[in-house]
Amino acid sequence: MAKEGCEMTEETQHMIEKQLSKENEHVESSCDGKEMRVVMLSGFGGLNKLRVTKKAMPEPADGEVKIRVKACGLNFLDLMVRQGIIDSPPKLPVVPGFECCGIVESIGENTEGFEIGDRVMAFVNYNAWAEVVCTSVDFVYKMPDEMSFAEAAAFSLNYVAAYMMLFEVANLREGMSVLVHSAGGSVGQAVAQLCSTVPNVTVFGIASCFKHPSIKNSVTHLFDRNIDYVHEVKVISPEGVDIVLDCLSGENTGKSLSLLKPLGTYILYGASNMVTGETKSFFSFAKSWWQVEKVNPIKLYEENKVIAGFSLLNLLFKQKKCDLVKSVMEKLLGLYNEQKIKPVVDSLWAVEEVKEAMQRIHDRGNIGKLILDVDKPPTPLMASDSTETSEAGEEEEETEGDNDIKERMPFIH
Amino acid sequence: MAKEGCEMTEETQHMIEKQLSKENEHVESSCDGKEMRVVMLSGFGGLNKLRVTKKAMPEPADGEVKIRVKACGLNFLDLMVRQGIIDSPPKLPVVPGFECCGIVESIGENTEGFEIGDRVMAFVNYNAWAEVVCTSVDFVYKMPDEMSFAEAAAFSLNYVAAYMMLFEVANLREGMSVLVHSAGGSVGQAVAQLCSTVPNVTVFGIASCFKHPSIKNSVTHLFDRNIDYVHEVKVISPEGVDIVLDCLSGENTGKSLSLLKPLGTYILYGASNMVTGETKSFFSFAKSWWQVEKVNPIKLYEENKVIAGFSLLNLLFKQKKCDLVKSVMEKLLGLYNEQKIKPVVDSLWAVEEVKEAMQRIHDRGNIGKLILDVDKPPTPLMASDSTETSEAGEEEEETEGDNDIKERMPFIH
Repeated sequence: MAKEGCEMTEETQHMIEKQLSKENEHVESSCDGKEMRVVMLSGFGGLNKLRVTKKAMPEPADGEVKIRVKACGLNFLDLMVRQGIIDSPPKLPVVPGFECCGIVESIGENTEGFEIGDRVMAFVNYNAWAEVVCTSVDFVYKMPDEMSFAEAAAFSLNYVAAYMMLFEVANLREGMSVLVHSAGGSVGQAVAQLCSTVPNVTVFGIASCFKHPSIKNSVTHLFDRNIDYVHEVKVISPEGVDIVLDCLSGENTGKSLSLLKPLGTYILYGASNMVTGETKSFFSFAKSWWQVEKVNPIKLYEENKVIAGFSLLNLLFKQKKCDLVKSVMEKLLGLYNEQKIKPVVDSLWAVEEVKEAMQRIHDRGNIGKLILDVDKPPTPLMASDSTETSEAGEEEEETEGDNDIKERMPFIH
Repeated sequence: MAKEGCEMTEETQHMIEKQLSKENEHVESSCDGKEMRVVMLSGFGGLNKLRVTKKAMPEPADGEVKIRVKACGLNFLDLMVRQGIIDSPPKLPVVPGFECCGIVESIGENTEGFEIGDRVMAFVNYNAWAEVVCTSVDFVYKMPDEMSFAEAAAFSLNYVAAYMMLFEVANLREGMSVLVHSAGGSVGQAVAQLCSTVPNVTVFGIASCFKHPSIKNSVTHLFDRNIDYVHEVKVISPEGVDIVLDCLSGENTGKSLSLLKPLGTYILYGASNMVTGETKSFFSFAKSWWQVEKVNPIKLYEENKVIAGFSLLNLLFKQKKCDLVKSVMEKLLGLYNEQKIKPVVDSLWAVEEVKEAMQRIHDRGNIGKLILDVDKPPTPLMASDSTETSEAGEEEEETEGDNDIKERMPFIH
């Protein structure tokens, strides 16, 4: 079912919902630049809570730029937002999305450092999945000339998070070892590349078997996510590892802590294990919260261990560490320009294909980043596809990984 | 009571216990170099479990040096060992003490890097409080020519711990802020000095009021340990601090975490709040263990915080990180030679005065380090002293801080 679901352009033709069609037609026909296409989340739950619709065009306030969006990043966190299993869920309806890139179209008052026509990437606290985004220049960065929009949309969140975890929180140095869960994901691939910028770093990656051929060269040792990785890592490195990066949470916290060397650091940067089925929401969140192993600081004392949490979005939007993130972005763009790092793009999707894209990330089928390409027209329906069957998949409690990697060639350059 | 206790040389004349006196007399008279004076802990509990006695002279094994001890460090941890409130209590009887300094007297086979006559400081896993110590060269470091034995005994454990916490675990950098509990203690003073080697670091110190005149110049802001320090720090720095160093544990863990800035690090390096009365042991240990606030990693994720534990002795003797500690010691000796750091010695005590010294550290009366000076004769009994009353103090549940700082002039140079 899931495999089919990934291939289907489910609901694609119906995403612009019928009750809005008159309004939309009016807007499309008027095309007066006062409205824009967005992905809208109308409630917490399954894929059917998402639709493409129109929304009033924003204009830049003081200190903001208005960006004509070319591409947006799609992250596992967006799926958790859709299900409502995050700490501070947004007010609904909301336009999801935390990162985008595009071209500066206009500039608010008292806004310095950017000009109309600049190619930029930006963080936003929601509202990224739209044709136009306005955001404070605190969260906007100029793109290198060589960087494509697809790369830029795959760059900001994942590389900044990976860099800050490795170098700000954990102090990665020559000769250390890093274990990364979800090594095939977009953060995992960023972590692997950044580790390769430091001499003699050993990377242990954990990923689903079907991803191994594609990512085996990016890490030193690769393990299947279904095996006893604690045992396997200890066979290779009996002392353990210096850094563990965990986006899963749950039982992996205790396992990962047990794998740390003295003075090693465990960093939790996500809780994707909270997502099981398609529509699970509060119950699985609460269960995961309580099931996660609490850590006794005295145990850390006895074992000389460090445990950290990292959320780039909270750092940016709750804790206002824009200057720090900007300095990290500068270092990262330096590494990009030196061709030491390069974002891995899994696939590009039309805005109208956001559900299929989300299903793919839910099924953990991606290798690298999923991108919403704002200018891309949706893939035409195949004769075998049927929008009538698509709803069934949304009630599935458990979906298996999609082992069939969909090839989509980037066409943004 | 405590104040009296600190002034009394309680039991000093009786420390060499009567049942051993014949044997001791024999040994003293023979003085054949086959035995040495040591402090012995015969059971877990109050001060009366300690006595000075004789023990067979050790000889250096392969890779060891034999050190004629000049001075030993006395730490709060020694008090916890005496009470048995540590994770892995030693087998009894045991000679306490984890650090000493002195002169290399002989060298075992296959031992490189040291010569007879070298002035050295050393870590040992117990057995430091003795006239002679044998230990692996992994734990031995040459003393700078300018360093006195009193300074050396005050140097190794506290400065290495302070340095590793600030620079290995927490990555202290320019412009950061550090909160240190027990700022008047020997680790606290080492922390303050090491912070001053980095530009523009703000140090918030917490200490008993009576220590403030002596240590106020070593930190930026100083607070009484009985006030609401969370509030006071936030008045000065609403954002909080970058690093908290906590040797108390208990309720301070939650308070300290709440004071951390985003990406800030809380380090627990002791649990001195476990020590209340003179003889409390397992019950208060278990109580403190369970009362300490467990930390949910998901909370760390939401708040971008880091929590760490640090135990130098576990790092050295359980986790065998001798090379790392050696490299840290080299950096520290560089700073000492540049006169950027200098150990603060609170007082020197004869071996026979170990109980009074321990009472002083229990009462948190010290500013800087307490030293056992092996060559120092015990202070003669004053006419007003009475060994008959000394036992009473040992049953006290709570003792107040000793505000009367005892002046003892160092005579080791």
